[in-house]
Amino acid sequence: MPDPSPGAPKTDETPSFFRSRWVEVPDSVVAVADRGLPRGFRAAGVAAGIKPSGGTDVALLVCDEPDAVSAARFTRSGTAAPPVLVTRQESRLDALRAVVVTSGNANAGTGRDGFETARQVRAAAARAAGVAEDEVAVCATGVIGVPLPMDVVPQGVAAAGEALRPDGDDDFRRGIETTDLFPKTASVTVRLDGGDVTLHAVCKGAGMIQPSFATMLCFVTTDAQLDAETADLLLGVCVKRSFDRISVDGQLSTSDTAVLIASGASGVAVASGSPDEQRLGLALDALLRQLAVLIAKDGEGARRVGRVVVRGPDGPACERVARQIANSPLVKTALYGGDPNWGRIVQAVGAVIPGPAFTPVGVRIEGVEVCRDGQEVVFDPDALATLVSGPEVDYEVTIGRPEGTAAGAPAFANETEVLFSDLGHEYVTLNAEYTT
Amino acid sequence: MPDPSPGAPKTDETPSFFRSRWVEVPDSVVAVADRGLPRGFRAAGVAAGIKPSGGTDVALLVCDEPDAVSAARFTRSGTAAPPVLVTRQESRLDALRAVVVTSGNANAGTGRDGFETARQVRAAAARAAGVAEDEVAVCATGVIGVPLPMDVVPQGVAAAGEALRPDGDDDFRRGIETTDLFPKTASVTVRLDGGDVTLHAVCKGAGMIQPSFATMLCFVTTDAQLDAETADLLLGVCVKRSFDRISVDGQLSTSDTAVLIASGASGVAVASGSPDEQRLGLALDALLRQLAVLIAKDGEGARRVGRVVVRGPDGPACERVARQIANSPLVKTALYGGDPNWGRIVQAVGAVIPGPAFTPVGVRIEGVEVCRDGQEVVFDPDALATLVSGPEVDYEVTIGRPEGTAAGAPAFANETEVLFSDLGHEYVTLNAEYTT
Repeated sequence: MPDPSPGAPKTDETPSFFRSRWVEVPDSVVAVADRGLPRGFRAAGVAAGIKPSGGTDVALLVCDEPDAVSAARFTRSGTAAPPVLVTRQESRLDALRAVVVTSGNANAGTGRDGFETARQVRAAAARAAGVAEDEVAVCATGVIGVPLPMDVVPQGVAAAGEALRPDGDDDFRRGIETTDLFPKTASVTVRLDGGDVTLHAVCKGAGMIQPSFATMLCFVTTDAQLDAETADLLLGVCVKRSFDRISVDGQLSTSDTAVLIASGASGVAVASGSPDEQRLGLALDALLRQLAVLIAKDGEGARRVGRVVVRGPDGPACERVARQIANSPLVKTALYGGDPNWGRIVQAVGAVIPGPAFTPVGVRIEGVEVCRDGQEVVFDPDALATLVSGPEVDYEVTIGRPEGTAAGAPAFANETEVLFSDLGHEYVTLNAEYTT
Repeated sequence: MPDPSPGAPKTDETPSFFRSRWVEVPDSVVAVADRGLPRGFRAAGVAAGIKPSGGTDVALLVCDEPDAVSAARFTRSGTAAPPVLVTRQESRLDALRAVVVTSGNANAGTGRDGFETARQVRAAAARAAGVAEDEVAVCATGVIGVPLPMDVVPQGVAAAGEALRPDGDDDFRRGIETTDLFPKTASVTVRLDGGDVTLHAVCKGAGMIQPSFATMLCFVTTDAQLDAETADLLLGVCVKRSFDRISVDGQLSTSDTAVLIASGASGVAVASGSPDEQRLGLALDALLRQLAVLIAKDGEGARRVGRVVVRGPDGPACERVARQIANSPLVKTALYGGDPNWGRIVQAVGAVIPGPAFTPVGVRIEGVEVCRDGQEVVFDPDALATLVSGPEVDYEVTIGRPEGTAAGAPAFANETEVLFSDLGHEYVTLNAEYTT
């Protein structure tokens, strides 16, 4: 196990939540718990009959403060599911007060009927939550191409409305999960100048359902008092540094949705540009990054999570290389097999850097330099094999040669990072054998 | 088994070679054999000691006609192996008369030393074949990052020179293979106005070696008399329609090389723009397409080969979509599992067509329409499941809605095709468990 981060939280109600060495926990995080909604929120989850298992499959989250502000991010898919498009196009993304989720059915690949169904679910949630229809975000995850069973969903939403409770977050979590192997949620206390606020996030990861595909959903709530621009900025930046940086299998879902709602119920106002905004931002960053690692870890039966950091003179090239490595089945199977295979890294670089000019590639695995200028460096393969047998494996890649720089300055102008799951038998089994 | 192609060859010395329904065999192909070099060529393969198995690992091919013309294509990798770069930069690509291949070691990831080694192998081959150094193409496939064992390779090349024979093509084939499960070669007789010519091609596919990655090599020989421009055009067009259209796992090798050498020894001149050029081109097209299908079939333990044809108004978008589908691990595992999963096709389309506007996608699997305008069409799932259980599965995808067109005109302006392997347990086993 790696050493605990120097910025690890001061209390340890859930010492295991912030367990990735790739996540820096800021000093402003003074407590971490495995649950607990912020003030001003209620949640519920009920079994409506969508999942054949009879599990919880309708989830409802409500903010009771009429002046709540919100922000949202969605999949960039060109075949986005109707719930995504209805929310984007017909709800007030900066003034959301409720989220309704159906799990077990994605309401995707359902054409025009799917839009009407998404609107009906949104209307039912508005009634159940006591808010306006355009204050509701509607989400769905699960089987694709099958109409949402509207004989049971509206009643389920109504029942969820009656079950709303300030401590309903665990039921809500179960209601958004599909085949997730473990919960992905935490509630952190953030110490600001104006007082303590709570930041809660819950997400579901890349489990598979029948003839479907993975969906990432994340819902963040806080009792901090934010303006809509700050909420949007915080969510936008933190999503870019977390969920936008992970890859289970390089596949984009039709339904990815992340929503942040701030109730303001703590009375602690966080002004734009203030030190408190930075503290809250760092806490949100740590929270979402750790959740992103957990999604990669839970992704499709993964055994190990890798992180690749690519440095070079050209930013877009670094991004292409990092994605190519993270999505390379050769790199991913080597990660699964505990094989410190640097040749596959060099191959992946070459695939997205145009030839024929030779690209001098450098590779470090778990800090051990294995390749310099595209040529092997002498290293101890047995020692390295041990280093790559843990739950997280770190790859550092450089493209080109560093410029002559002042002492202490970074050798390369650009750096990008992607976290990724391995590719093993469990992925094949989940995706080949357990579908219809 | 699908019905034989209407254009199937008239004789059946190897009735099994042209067995993909995706390959049209032109009438100009009047005989097909599993081996037989054209006039003017000799070949050999010897065991030099590169492969730990003691197998054949140095292959040499020579054209004895001093006026031979040639053409070549190479990987576009930015980390191309030294043999590729030495051949591209220092040999006469339109006047090659010999090819030397080492298998079991790719001479890749070997830095500056690797270039010197590649030049030494090329020089040894020139001596062994009795040609000039810049008339030799040097190729390698196998383990990466390990220096080529120059204590044994030059002697191996010399021994191959002594073993050159007109019927040495089988030894040559063994000398270029790595973990190929079956031979990928054929010799066809093409009837031209000026007389019959022979077209021979041999390739190796996507087997894996130790901490390495796949390499595709293909060598085409003919005794037709071509000018260099015609050779280049024929090889270029046919490579684009064959090897450029397959994907085992979306990964680009450092070492891919295709070479065509025309000896002219038949005395049958093929003029540029003549009907004979078209006949020869169609024969080469069929030959290389069938070999490409065989590479995909032999790729990384594949069980099934898929073909996706994407049609739409925007050519580059069709290409992006076809590649995304062919390289999607979700589509590939569904192919492996015999699952006619159209949701994953729709998902892959959305991943590369920017949202949020809704893209009306149409999908046919084995000719059965399953999705229209992004919504499921009623079909018989049991019948479709039977159709996708064969060795080849056909996917047709449309993006957008067809324009109003005259009767008989194609509904979409653009069409692109990619052939791809599935993704199964054998791939994971090969790439995760059998590497160092």
